[in-house]
Amino acid sequence: MKKHFWNTVCRIAAVLLLAAAAHAGTPAGGKKSDAIVVAESALLPSWNDSPAKQAIVDFVRRAIAPDGDDFIPPAERIAVFDNDGTLWSEQPMYTQMFFTLDRIQALAPLHPEWREQEPFASVLRGDVAGGLAGGVKSAFQLVLAAHAGMTEDEFARIARKWFATARHPETGRLFTDMAYQPMLEVMDYLRDNGFSIHIVSGGGVDLIRAFSEKTYGVPPENVIGSSLKTEWSDAGGEPHVLRTAEIDAINDGPAKPLSIQRDIGKRPVMAFGNSDGDLQMLQLTTSGSRPGLAVLVHHTDGEREWAYDRQSRTGRLDKALDEAMAKGWVVVDMAKDWSVVFSDGK
Amino acid sequence: MKKHFWNTVCRIAAVLLLAAAAHAGTPAGGKKSDAIVVAESALLPSWNDSPAKQAIVDFVRRAIAPDGDDFIPPAERIAVFDNDGTLWSEQPMYTQMFFTLDRIQALAPLHPEWREQEPFASVLRGDVAGGLAGGVKSAFQLVLAAHAGMTEDEFARIARKWFATARHPETGRLFTDMAYQPMLEVMDYLRDNGFSIHIVSGGGVDLIRAFSEKTYGVPPENVIGSSLKTEWSDAGGEPHVLRTAEIDAINDGPAKPLSIQRDIGKRPVMAFGNSDGDLQMLQLTTSGSRPGLAVLVHHTDGEREWAYDRQSRTGRLDKALDEAMAKGWVVVDMAKDWSVVFSDGK
Repeated sequence: MKKHFWNTVCRIAAVLLLAAAAHAGTPAGGKKSDAIVVAESALLPSWNDSPAKQAIVDFVRRAIAPDGDDFIPPAERIAVFDNDGTLWSEQPMYTQMFFTLDRIQALAPLHPEWREQEPFASVLRGDVAGGLAGGVKSAFQLVLAAHAGMTEDEFARIARKWFATARHPETGRLFTDMAYQPMLEVMDYLRDNGFSIHIVSGGGVDLIRAFSEKTYGVPPENVIGSSLKTEWSDAGGEPHVLRTAEIDAINDGPAKPLSIQRDIGKRPVMAFGNSDGDLQMLQLTTSGSRPGLAVLVHHTDGEREWAYDRQSRTGRLDKALDEAMAKGWVVVDMAKDWSVVFSDGK
Repeated sequence: MKKHFWNTVCRIAAVLLLAAAAHAGTPAGGKKSDAIVVAESALLPSWNDSPAKQAIVDFVRRAIAPDGDDFIPPAERIAVFDNDGTLWSEQPMYTQMFFTLDRIQALAPLHPEWREQEPFASVLRGDVAGGLAGGVKSAFQLVLAAHAGMTEDEFARIARKWFATARHPETGRLFTDMAYQPMLEVMDYLRDNGFSIHIVSGGGVDLIRAFSEKTYGVPPENVIGSSLKTEWSDAGGEPHVLRTAEIDAINDGPAKPLSIQRDIGKRPVMAFGNSDGDLQMLQLTTSGSRPGLAVLVHHTDGEREWAYDRQSRTGRLDKALDEAMAKGWVVVDMAKDWSVVFSDGK
């Protein structure tokens, strides 16, 4: 995919959505999975035969073998997936930022003052880079204006309506059609083998819930993400949950294992991520006495998707890649390992 | 059950564990469930035939009737249960407070300074009332000392070990044997009809998780409760989740609908509680366009359990009882409606 307006101008937007989480683990002795190399063409059909595919299939087979040393009881088969860059694309900026910019346009008639007020004024003129020139503060102002001030039910309706028609400016696809077909197959494969699938994202939990069941088969109660503070209000009749313009939690980096503990209360046995923001979640999954499989999706495919890693502002993969190599974690090479990228088969 | 040392001396402890949540809804027009009065002796065998039992059974039958107007798709059959006083006893003080006092005794050899330091000194002398004379602050000091400063895995081991042997001082029962048999039957009945069961408690989430699966059949990921702040630490080798001595959230009163929204992301269709701390959860469940059933367990049985409501320091039921009567919510009369109280059949 060629360089583009969005790549050069807007990429800065994405990273501003999340407080960056930088933190190294200590690379330790390399442990390689001893995958059995057998053609598995019936399983995970959009995966080429590769060590990554073999490692996933091998882990699952050992987990479900009732007499094996690595048997995992069904109740403990918890698999966690990052969302942006792991289950769908995150370039040139997070889908949540596209949603935010569209909401600002939609809300503008109700906010005439935005015409004079940054960062809104720039965004409304179509100057996204200008609107984000103020850094994290500007990005948060836009995100909060787009996500707060309504009930949870209203937000869900707004988000579902947006996903039904909004399209990615470069690919022309519905955003939900930019889910990765190979990852949908992994989730189905895991469910077929008794695993419980949880999304653990740095993105806003309620935006993900608006499409996760339909697109991924993951119900709302299995989605953890960043959140706004909410209020219980009975003003104006029936009581309801109101979304306030204040951040409750940014679920990135070291916050991921903590939210997994709080909301799931179990150590996952499989974790899938793609960036340094997933490092601690992968560490959690591979710590403890039980075997755990950590998988990193490495964005190597500049033709079919985007190629980026250590230098990227969105989805930077640097420390986690070092740790993956040191510890023998599974690294998926999108260009080589996936025969198909997107869920529409292209 | 007669007045007792614990009743007169320690009851004050329980209420101190939670920030009291007082808050009225506006009682509105009475809506009575038009329960079909049919003997249902095969269902819910520890329930006497009563309007409360009929209302529960009737709601479930309407929810699962595929052609009925009140059909609820399985994915939306979310039932939420308070824990203390709803699923097991909470008198003369919350089980969590018994756990706390035992932990203080167990930890005392590691803390010689506690012999001189309140509230620990009083507790270690056996003077619980004296230890709690400092009110909420003292209670929190004790609770934090008992619950913080270890990894999540260590805390789970400590809690499980305690539940295996600790007994209620008045009944002599294991605390987990003081689960209410009629409520266990309700949970089984709901599961059999495709409902998903969630505990939404003011108690500490990790203490509940130590017994909820075995006692209630509710897995850790379906338990929401109060929590400590945690930290991700890789000090001393393998990274782990550390429990700090700081409260993260008290999940009582208006916090309950908010945590339900955050962690489940769906409006429940059935809610079971027993105190004013459950009021907003019941309001959430009965609001919106879909039918929802709110059930209050009313502690009317001073012989087999404890009798208390509007004046009780633990599990006060006052505003929620008014609202239940005004709105036609189901009120369970423990003395009349339950043929058996505890899960050991007595």
